[in-house]
Amino acid sequence: MLSTEPSTPLVVLDLLGIFVFAIAGALVAVRKELDVFGVLVLAGITGLGGGVLRDVLIDRTPPAALVDWRYLAVPLVAGLLAFVYHPALGKMEPSINVLDAFGLGLFCVTGAQKALDAGLGPAPAALLGMVTGIGGGIMRDVLAGRVPAVFRGELYATPALAGAIVVVVGSYTDLPFAIVAFTGGGLCIVWRLLAIWRHWQAPVPTGPASV
Amino acid sequence: MLSTEPSTPLVVLDLLGIFVFAIAGALVAVRKELDVFGVLVLAGITGLGGGVLRDVLIDRTPPAALVDWRYLAVPLVAGLLAFVYHPALGKMEPSINVLDAFGLGLFCVTGAQKALDAGLGPAPAALLGMVTGIGGGIMRDVLAGRVPAVFRGELYATPALAGAIVVVVGSYTDLPFAIVAFTGGGLCIVWRLLAIWRHWQAPVPTGPASV
Amino acid sequence: MLSTEPSTPLVVLDLLGIFVFAIAGALVAVRKELDVFGVLVLAGITGLGGGVLRDVLIDRTPPAALVDWRYLAVPLVAGLLAFVYHPALGKMEPSINVLDAFGLGLFCVTGAQKALDAGLGPAPAALLGMVTGIGGGIMRDVLAGRVPAVFRGELYATPALAGAIVVVVGSYTDLPFAIVAFTGGGLCIVWRLLAIWRHWQAPVPTGPASV
Repeated sequence: MLSTEPSTPLVVLDLLGIFVFAIAGALVAVRKELDVFGVLVLAGITGLGGGVLRDVLIDRTPPAALVDWRYLAVPLVAGLLAFVYHPALGKMEPSINVLDAFGLGLFCVTGAQKALDAGLGPAPAALLGMVTGIGGGIMRDVLAGRVPAVFRGELYATPALAGAIVVVVGSYTDLPFAIVAFTGGGLCIVWRLLAIWRHWQAPVPTGPASV
Repeated sequence: MLSTEPSTPLVVLDLLGIFVFAIAGALVAVRKELDVFGVLVLAGITGLGGGVLRDVLIDRTPPAALVDWRYLAVPLVAGLLAFVYHPALGKMEPSINVLDAFGLGLFCVTGAQKALDAGLGPAPAALLGMVTGIGGGIMRDVLAGRVPAVFRGELYATPALAGAIVVVVGSYTDLPFAIVAFTGGGLCIVWRLLAIWRHWQAPVPTGPASV
Repeated sequence: MLSTEPSTPLVVLDLLGIFVFAIAGALVAVRKELDVFGVLVLAGITGLGGGVLRDVLIDRTPPAALVDWRYLAVPLVAGLLAFVYHPALGKMEPSINVLDAFGLGLFCVTGAQKALDAGLGPAPAALLGMVTGIGGGIMRDVLAGRVPAVFRGELYATPALAGAIVVVVGSYTDLPFAIVAFTGGGLCIVWRLLAIWRHWQAPVPTGPASV
């Protein structure tokens, strides 16, 4: 193993976020009528893709997802569960969307912090925090043959970016990381939940579509 | 050149596998009515994409495909051949699928071994062996605007994973690499050929598709 | 900051190329009716994607686009401009295509040179020069849900490859870099502009499409 074992509570949170993302990804695969392998791959890509992309970009390779076996086991289990129990899970989707918001809040915080740890400046670190949160879902949608949901009005990226910005700004203060992380993650989660509840949409271009 | 020259028989096998994959990729491009450049790119991506993705993930950059000129020359030749002779090659597709199975068996073995050499654990090494075998085809399908065939019932990934697992398990034994490699590659090839011959399909989710 | 500050004139040219590419990418997003976030992402991917892919492949991570804040600011501004002024920008598209040719000529030259600097051989360096020029546009098209324009007859990749080859060949001569760069970039730009003006197309496969 190449990584030092990270502190347990953070890893448990990370694995929970991956689990929820993976369930959401597997349900997309089921609806696209993909086979069991497609379900497992989309579960894994949705749960791990954003973090792997971040790790490749900041040169933390091999990515954590390929060094700690639990990061592979969680989406595998989630994908198999979704393959078998998708009718029940599909009905629970509103609850899954709520959990998904928590995963998003978690990933934007840990992603931004890892980018800062790698020595990146404030703007790229905030960007990579957002990418950690939304990258897996974008890859899932491309592989499933649809334009990423996050580009089509779904208010998903902005809360992740806001949470990541809080972490970056907080790193310039004397505040303890726990407080900064809770503030940033909380902002992302509350914003995302409000967007789901109130059907907030990201603005689309106005005026005649130029041809 | 950054690499030491690898032993010739393995390289010849590798290049043969890339050639067959590239022909298959170029035929997809011809059917999608892409231009000569699209045919060459899909040939190259199909032949080299899985290995390049693996090399990026295990931090063996620049990837072998960018260090040894023969790895670029082979898909170039394959793509040009397919561009000109695609009517004949299209008719030979059953034979190409058989050769493709040999490429798959080869890549899952070499991919898993390279991941082990990079210090990865057993589960990620098996995963990367499979990725080496199927990654290029997935990229080809995404670029050609279709959902990857490997997600739609085609029994292709499982044999590659099985072959890679044999290599990983074998690395914990005292067996010589040649025996382990032939067993793993052979298992993958036979399974894949049986799947083609018997029209075996990967299972799809059952029950009502949740909306 | 991890990079040394590069010399100003080259950076200004680089940023101009990114700006034009980003405008073109944002207009694709507007036409696909993506939201403001989709417009910004496609602007950023189109402007920066080719260079980031090159940097990952030659192990120059974190990529320049994540180290120098100006590389992020430029596509952000371009995307916001296109979001607001797309009706006017859409009408200016012929002019944008001309500027785009200059961006292509610039990127194929700098991309090939950076690959040579990283120790790659002539064929991969030429390939990466072309990838730097066309990679962002391919990623944009995949994310927007369409087969890359560069595969569908548009004569775009060949001029980029030609320009990159000039740079590679020139590196084996005693000619000063400026002369080689102008020759390579100029060849690419003139060829691309002629292709736009004369509606040159890349050849497509002939004969019955094999099924």
